[in-house]
Amino acid sequence: MTNIALLGFGTVGKGIYEILKDKEVYLKEKYGFDYKIVAISDFAFGNVYNPNGLDMELMMEEALAGKKFSKDVVDMDNVTLIKECNADLMCELTYTDLSTGGPAIDHCKAALSSGKHVVTSNKGPAALYYPEMKKLADENGVTFMIEGTVCAGTPIINLTDGPLAGCEISKIRGILNGTTNYMLSEMEKGMAYDEVLKVAQELGYAEADPTGDVEGHDARGKVTILANIVMGAGIKIADVSCEGITKITLEDIAKAKEQNARWKLIGSVEKKDGKVIGSVAPEMVDMSHPLAGVMGATNALTFTTDLLGDVTIVGPGAGKIETGFSILTDILAIHRNKKCC
Amino acid sequence: MTNIALLGFGTVGKGIYEILKDKEVYLKEKYGFDYKIVAISDFAFGNVYNPNGLDMELMMEEALAGKKFSKDVVDMDNVTLIKECNADLMCELTYTDLSTGGPAIDHCKAALSSGKHVVTSNKGPAALYYPEMKKLADENGVTFMIEGTVCAGTPIINLTDGPLAGCEISKIRGILNGTTNYMLSEMEKGMAYDEVLKVAQELGYAEADPTGDVEGHDARGKVTILANIVMGAGIKIADVSCEGITKITLEDIAKAKEQNARWKLIGSVEKKDGKVIGSVAPEMVDMSHPLAGVMGATNALTFTTDLLGDVTIVGPGAGKIETGFSILTDILAIHRNKKCC
Repeated sequence: MTNIALLGFGTVGKGIYEILKDKEVYLKEKYGFDYKIVAISDFAFGNVYNPNGLDMELMMEEALAGKKFSKDVVDMDNVTLIKECNADLMCELTYTDLSTGGPAIDHCKAALSSGKHVVTSNKGPAALYYPEMKKLADENGVTFMIEGTVCAGTPIINLTDGPLAGCEISKIRGILNGTTNYMLSEMEKGMAYDEVLKVAQELGYAEADPTGDVEGHDARGKVTILANIVMGAGIKIADVSCEGITKITLEDIAKAKEQNARWKLIGSVEKKDGKVIGSVAPEMVDMSHPLAGVMGATNALTFTTDLLGDVTIVGPGAGKIETGFSILTDILAIHRNKKCC
Repeated sequence: MTNIALLGFGTVGKGIYEILKDKEVYLKEKYGFDYKIVAISDFAFGNVYNPNGLDMELMMEEALAGKKFSKDVVDMDNVTLIKECNADLMCELTYTDLSTGGPAIDHCKAALSSGKHVVTSNKGPAALYYPEMKKLADENGVTFMIEGTVCAGTPIINLTDGPLAGCEISKIRGILNGTTNYMLSEMEKGMAYDEVLKVAQELGYAEADPTGDVEGHDARGKVTILANIVMGAGIKIADVSCEGITKITLEDIAKAKEQNARWKLIGSVEKKDGKVIGSVAPEMVDMSHPLAGVMGATNALTFTTDLLGDVTIVGPGAGKIETGFSILTDILAIHRNKKCC
């Protein structure tokens, strides 16, 4: 039995609960996995804890109605709740803050230092403090799992850690931001940048303030994570050079087409003379390359390896269920490695 | 310390030894992995065994010179050697026989029943007897690992078993044969089928008797493996419908281009009404699909899943080092799961 604490009960928090509920029988039969959600902390709904498992149907009902939780409410701040609850693992699912990391940093530290595994889709702790978190996890005999921080549930971190184990990866290049890839795809149909941005905002792909996506900051966070985790680099976000797509014109798009190429916002990490260099910039990708065909909000990464040459993976880059899956797959990895219960 | 027996010391056997030797320090540092090769059985070079580790430099030297092994020679047949040696795992790397499975079947049975893990790139045991091998492995507390049987070392089996764990896969479609994909790619440049086949034979992509590739038999073996392992189907090779590329003309190629599509030899496995259907046939793939851009001897597979939608992986489909890697990655998985030494 795996006892779970959810920090944040927004889209991803509700998503992972729905998946766990829908797949309860399948996960029990296939992996011998069963679970209880024992604690939730949410800014809007309050903090609840029951060491024997929360009444999740009620919690969902109240959260969906926008009401505060009414049962098992505890008067503990987040860090105290994390430390004192009987969870085996904590899912950190609060909002991403790429400047300071936000409260997620304290949440992760509290969980790891009290011997709880951490599974997160929050880019903050992973992009800003990965080495520290990894060290804290190792010291406490637990794991810090972050599949969901890059390309939602599309296997990236776990792919390089598991099935690619034994390969040395010298370069990673890819499409790490779905919003800008959608925008560049649409511009190919003849819509100018400003117009496309408006549509992307209407569709909910881009936020009211689109800076994080269009200036490449989101991709830069992911590049930092890849550099530090896959290549063991120890770099900071500010070390990654960053240019967005705001200067790409319809003329640029047309010119690329003439050259049998296509503009993509490419995040890349490369080992050069023992140093790891990260960058985000628009690039013309030749149409014969697997990344060129990746359209819309889809993400893709090409790993250049010593033994396999190039290996490319293509999959979703966002979504409630897709990100929920990233949490599930990390929870299962912990369970299957017999690291908990 | 992992003790290894190599059954077959041809291209892949030599390849995995070279990788293990080149990466000795890296594998020790990163994964705490070290090994000894204690036994080799090869039709051409003979059977050798030394429980303390063979003199591998000498073995390589003799094999590369086409000479029989001269040191640690034992008078044991393959099955006796496998059973009696002190290996923790056996790599089955003899030739693939998709009709009967060949001697590889007895090799795998001998290893599993005497408590040795099996790692193989041989499609015979995997395509013809997977359920039996899996059962035998389970009964003896060991594993039967077969990453190398589909797309060389490109992660397929280990991807679905590990980082995609928790997803239910309802459909797999892909380019599973590099030779025919190379031929179709070249036909697009205007060469007719017969001409392209000749070039592929000259380049060593196609064999003198190209039937196994061009009639789709090789892809059919892989489809059977995917159906049985990823979908737990329990089907036989003969259950998979099979059509090759021999009837594709330059006119067909041109017609596809007009429709913004491209011919690919597609292997597919699909769950329909609780039944698993496997097939191999040429298909026109729309140019917007990730599989359309996969050219030359490269392989690619798209998994349709419940939680992530489509996930596609693209990588090498053959090669000495690429297949050698598949053996390494399976050996490492066994080591890291603490299933041996």
